[in-house]
Amino acid sequence: MPVARKNELKDKLHEVIFEADTPAGKTFDVILLILIMASVLVVMMESVQPLQDRFASLFYALEWGFTVLFTLEYILRLYCVYRPSKYAASFFGVIDLLAILPTYISLFIYGTQYLLVIRALRLLRVFRIFKLGHFLVEGEVLMKALKASRAKITVFLTFVLLLVIIIGSVMYLVEGGQNEGFSSIPRSIYWTIVTLTTVGYGDITPVTELGQFLSAFIMILGYAIIAVPTGIVSAEMVAGARGEEERNTQACRYCGAEGHDNDAVYCKYCGERLN
Amino acid sequence: MPVARKNELKDKLHEVIFEADTPAGKTFDVILLILIMASVLVVMMESVQPLQDRFASLFYALEWGFTVLFTLEYILRLYCVYRPSKYAASFFGVIDLLAILPTYISLFIYGTQYLLVIRALRLLRVFRIFKLGHFLVEGEVLMKALKASRAKITVFLTFVLLLVIIIGSVMYLVEGGQNEGFSSIPRSIYWTIVTLTTVGYGDITPVTELGQFLSAFIMILGYAIIAVPTGIVSAEMVAGARGEEERNTQACRYCGAEGHDNDAVYCKYCGERLN
Amino acid sequence: MPVARKNELKDKLHEVIFEADTPAGKTFDVILLILIMASVLVVMMESVQPLQDRFASLFYALEWGFTVLFTLEYILRLYCVYRPSKYAASFFGVIDLLAILPTYISLFIYGTQYLLVIRALRLLRVFRIFKLGHFLVEGEVLMKALKASRAKITVFLTFVLLLVIIIGSVMYLVEGGQNEGFSSIPRSIYWTIVTLTTVGYGDITPVTELGQFLSAFIMILGYAIIAVPTGIVSAEMVAGARGEEERNTQACRYCGAEGHDNDAVYCKYCGERLN
Amino acid sequence: MPVARKNELKDKLHEVIFEADTPAGKTFDVILLILIMASVLVVMMESVQPLQDRFASLFYALEWGFTVLFTLEYILRLYCVYRPSKYAASFFGVIDLLAILPTYISLFIYGTQYLLVIRALRLLRVFRIFKLGHFLVEGEVLMKALKASRAKITVFLTFVLLLVIIIGSVMYLVEGGQNEGFSSIPRSIYWTIVTLTTVGYGDITPVTELGQFLSAFIMILGYAIIAVPTGIVSAEMVAGARGEEERNTQACRYCGAEGHDNDAVYCKYCGERLN
Repeated sequence: MPVARKNELKDKLHEVIFEADTPAGKTFDVILLILIMASVLVVMMESVQPLQDRFASLFYALEWGFTVLFTLEYILRLYCVYRPSKYAASFFGVIDLLAILPTYISLFIYGTQYLLVIRALRLLRVFRIFKLGHFLVEGEVLMKALKASRAKITVFLTFVLLLVIIIGSVMYLVEGGQNEGFSSIPRSIYWTIVTLTTVGYGDITPVTELGQFLSAFIMILGYAIIAVPTGIVSAEMVAGARGEEERNTQACRYCGAEGHDNDAVYCKYCGERLN
Repeated sequence: MPVARKNELKDKLHEVIFEADTPAGKTFDVILLILIMASVLVVMMESVQPLQDRFASLFYALEWGFTVLFTLEYILRLYCVYRPSKYAASFFGVIDLLAILPTYISLFIYGTQYLLVIRALRLLRVFRIFKLGHFLVEGEVLMKALKASRAKITVFLTFVLLLVIIIGSVMYLVEGGQNEGFSSIPRSIYWTIVTLTTVGYGDITPVTELGQFLSAFIMILGYAIIAVPTGIVSAEMVAGARGEEERNTQACRYCGAEGHDNDAVYCKYCGERLN
Repeated sequence: MPVARKNELKDKLHEVIFEADTPAGKTFDVILLILIMASVLVVMMESVQPLQDRFASLFYALEWGFTVLFTLEYILRLYCVYRPSKYAASFFGVIDLLAILPTYISLFIYGTQYLLVIRALRLLRVFRIFKLGHFLVEGEVLMKALKASRAKITVFLTFVLLLVIIIGSVMYLVEGGQNEGFSSIPRSIYWTIVTLTTVGYGDITPVTELGQFLSAFIMILGYAIIAVPTGIVSAEMVAGARGEEERNTQACRYCGAEGHDNDAVYCKYCGERLN
Repeated sequence: MPVARKNELKDKLHEVIFEADTPAGKTFDVILLILIMASVLVVMMESVQPLQDRFASLFYALEWGFTVLFTLEYILRLYCVYRPSKYAASFFGVIDLLAILPTYISLFIYGTQYLLVIRALRLLRVFRIFKLGHFLVEGEVLMKALKASRAKITVFLTFVLLLVIIIGSVMYLVEGGQNEGFSSIPRSIYWTIVTLTTVGYGDITPVTELGQFLSAFIMILGYAIIAVPTGIVSAEMVAGARGEEERNTQACRYCGAEGHDNDAVYCKYCGERLN
């Protein structure tokens, strides 16, 4: 039956491309990772003028080579899954598509080929391939902590945004005339963000006495402000860590006491054996 | 009865202007938010020289248009509340007034129109309009944590202030002669704050060996110092989060007191049994 | 009895100078605070060249005026305490002496008068005068948290110091030839500290590709490193806060249960009245 | 018996060189520490051009002097331990070898003598000599906290790395043409790391409006990102501190297990009653 044979081919392909438990699947994934890294490296080197001057045609060839390979891979992936639309709409499906589009678009719009670095996101597959699921769990704990503090962080960012607009305008009034750096309110706001986040490039700096005096205040304020998101995330993580600890409890069958350590063999309250 | 009719009008206006539960009220608030954002944007663009050169008269017209609208709104608000003085003295009442004054003052003193950015604070209404009360609660938790650590932060800031004055003077003695950046003690203090907060513009940097040696010490010190406010806020937030967790929401049937611990059997205020 | 009268005078003086409970004592302290702030301000202004050019003789007169006043005050303090040696050796005694010495030394060595800013430390008296004892307690909690983490911080700083020496030397080898900023190992170490602490002046920056690559690693490392002291202090403060909470416990007379809230009136476990 | 005498010599040497309990052992270690510090200082001073110009031959002589001494010491250490291969492969054994090699290699490759600063690592012996074992324990607590958060930090760093590649490429597209600083993607990535870590040298800064707008976003993002490792480490340390508190030091009389909770009545490993 040709239909069945086709399904066999599909299944075989699916195993190689999507899974990493068989030798063939693992080999495929490792080769893929190396190709992705090589292609990201080529995009980076292409942007370095001296290298581009010497190897322009080589880079061009490699870029198209990688793109054709990844396009084939994308088509195969669509072919061998049972519900292609679901894969195409999944996180990795979208990334896989975005990772080949820029080369084609660069035929029409120059410069877009540098967007190929989005291929780097495909490297996230590394966690799946090398059975680093444990790490993904940790990532989820991180995301959970960040999500739990989403409301606090939104309020905080709104507050910072309003603060930054008002401080920026005041600094524009103070420094505007004497200082080319503070030539407009948007630029002053840029300076305020550079200062509050303690990045401090120094491309724009206050020159008047009043401006420097105000800046000193803004920095001290930034000191206090930077403590807030750190405090929020720390508190969530401490709460998360405590939650994890408490989750690993079993009750003693004899006295019903809870809160046993993971390595406990006997109940610490009645001395009976735990399961 | 004309008086009653007047009250009806007042009530209707109050509903539209102050509340956001009816379609009319919500529409009013959304239009208001858009106008506020547009007016802040106009003030910002006005400060950009190339834009100002081309659209000066347009900006001028828009600025007065927004101001007249907001003035009308302020008068209506005063008119339709039952106790106008209470509204005028409230947080939003003061902001609403400050949001229109600069345009009028700019007739006499040039430059004050940039203070119109204070209108940005009116955007805080967004939390009320879109029923983001939950976020305001989070904001209160944040404020509570900051208030609880007020005493610690005051002691800390006093200490930093004295430290900054003394380090600034020592650096002035060390670098003063060879370095234009350290031309006076106040300027040295400005440098010290830029360094301790790890902003580090680089507009003033030590050039002598001794100065660089001392700077290295000051930075390591700043390292330790920046840990303190973060630690304070983190500790408060952890305490706040734990407090929340350990309390449940059940109210005593006898005295109505809330905030009982999860393991409480009797009300801690009246001694009656809890459910 | 002249001796008794003398003691009365001593007691009266002691009350005015050392205590702040009587109107006279409070007035004395407030005037003292204003004089100290004024004298620190004069020292600062003296260092600003344009001000110094115009008011040199005024500043000179004021400086000597303040010094004579503070010298008199110091002598009176020594006179009216019963154990002058104990006061002289106390924290404030030493500060009071150091606050007058620089003016006298400046007669022999030019420039030492700027050390008068040490007078700023005398302002710490403000906590005592305005009954801000509560704040001092908070300061002690802070100091305790810092002391408790002393061992961890020492290990951490030793580690950072060794790291900084080795990174500095490697960067000197990498950048030394092409970059004036990395002209010696001590200067490279200065750059390393500027980078690791995220101050980042930009007076010295890597210019070679390898140097920039290594710098990127060092910054990411600094990212991780800055988390350590913050974590140490946060952990101590959380522990301190928990300690404080737990300290406020009383045991129920009937069931012996502990862990009652400060505002609890009845035992939450047996419902009996607490003391 | 000459063999026995040799062993006696070996034992004596071992006591002096490896131990610090006898007066001879302590004296040896203190002299060694001073020599190490002196030799690191000489390497540093050698790199300072003005000093090198004047004292070149002195530095050269000192460097060889120290190297010969440390070589002798290394040979003696190898001689007097019973299992030389184990010492040679230990942490301090490797450091001791690396601390003498660069001088010999510098005969063939110029510049390697600056790698002698690796001798600084030998100073870690200070903890052993001055019985600062307590500090090493603290260091282990630190390391344990860092190890426990290894998985979270790996996920976090992977995420930061991908983020940095993508942001760097976007900024290259935006600023590349108008700004020499963003002349290639690797250089843009360098700038992104400088910005995200809030180091902010200012050697490369955005000049276009869009670039500054994006930078402001990146900084705010960096704000949030820097909170994550701090939160991770804080949470681990809080957990570590709580763990320490809740455990007591009593050992089970039957199985000898330690680490029992304060409220434990029975040993959780063998079920026997605790004291």
